[in-house]
Amino acid sequence: MTESAHPLPDLDPQARKTVLRQISYGLYAITAAHHGERGIFTANWLTQVSFDPPLLALSVERESSTLRLIRESGRFAVCPLAEGQRELAGNIGRPRAKAGDKFAAYDLATFDSAAGVPILADTLGWLVCRVTAEVPAGDSVLLLAEVIEAQVLRDGVPLTMRSAGFRHAG
Amino acid sequence: MTESAHPLPDLDPQARKTVLRQISYGLYAITAAHHGERGIFTANWLTQVSFDPPLLALSVERESSTLRLIRESGRFAVCPLAEGQRELAGNIGRPRAKAGDKFAAYDLATFDSAAGVPILADTLGWLVCRVTAEVPAGDSVLLLAEVIEAQVLRDGVPLTMRSAGFRHAG
Repeated sequence: MTESAHPLPDLDPQARKTVLRQISYGLYAITAAHHGERGIFTANWLTQVSFDPPLLALSVERESSTLRLIRESGRFAVCPLAEGQRELAGNIGRPRAKAGDKFAAYDLATFDSAAGVPILADTLGWLVCRVTAEVPAGDSVLLLAEVIEAQVLRDGVPLTMRSAGFRHAG
Repeated sequence: MTESAHPLPDLDPQARKTVLRQISYGLYAITAAHHGERGIFTANWLTQVSFDPPLLALSVERESSTLRLIRESGRFAVCPLAEGQRELAGNIGRPRAKAGDKFAAYDLATFDSAAGVPILADTLGWLVCRVTAEVPAGDSVLLLAEVIEAQVLRDGVPLTMRSAGFRHAG
């Protein structure tokens, strides 16, 4: 559905990158599981897209090892990270090919939701979402999903890309 | 593409709302024009979704008067607002049915991009995007779009929903 680029002659790649980095993001642990296999990664390309029904859109890189688990189970969880969880965000953001089993490597405390999705404990809260549509989006896949479970875990200020000093845009 | 809800029995609407409000957002002026008619509104449900090609996803309420202009022209601009532009964000966030011609009512300074999209001056910068796909998303429409023009206007801290004290999530 995504056509190739037809940029105007005066498109400045550096300006494009700078303005794309003026977009504000939070940081989220995304989890999924299928047949006992679990995956987790750090995402920032996430937004609500509808109030009724409550829908989210999440962009996932095509090479993500967790994407297969999301597709097979049709479910994922969104766990908003809190200020102070910058190192955690960095750890679970490492590729599985380098970090191995991140749940074991970083001693991540988890519990299962009613739908069987592993939830990262000690985050601000969590949502389990059911994928309702998948849209090709360049080097990534955009998942539309409906919230089917939710729990608040604690008060706190959400971790943002800006406060973490991270960049993943441009 | 969006199926109706099948929530688990224990879905708590208040918990869902609270966790959805843990998602972080910036604030953006979105503009479009077609055959001399111009539209502008405030958005927060926006995210980049691909690096290559550079794609954004923007959720627009179905009743938005600017949505028709975006559809007819196939273009919109994203202008990230800066800290200090909270009142501006509130003004251009008013429905056209109540505010009338917001460009005139709020004396908005604009200029046209090469592609002919009106740009709100005095924002941090702007991107003109070409719509590549439209996905139904509950009460809204999710637009996928490729960046075709970009300009940095000035340095500054992006305005966020949190810093503005606004809520549009849950």
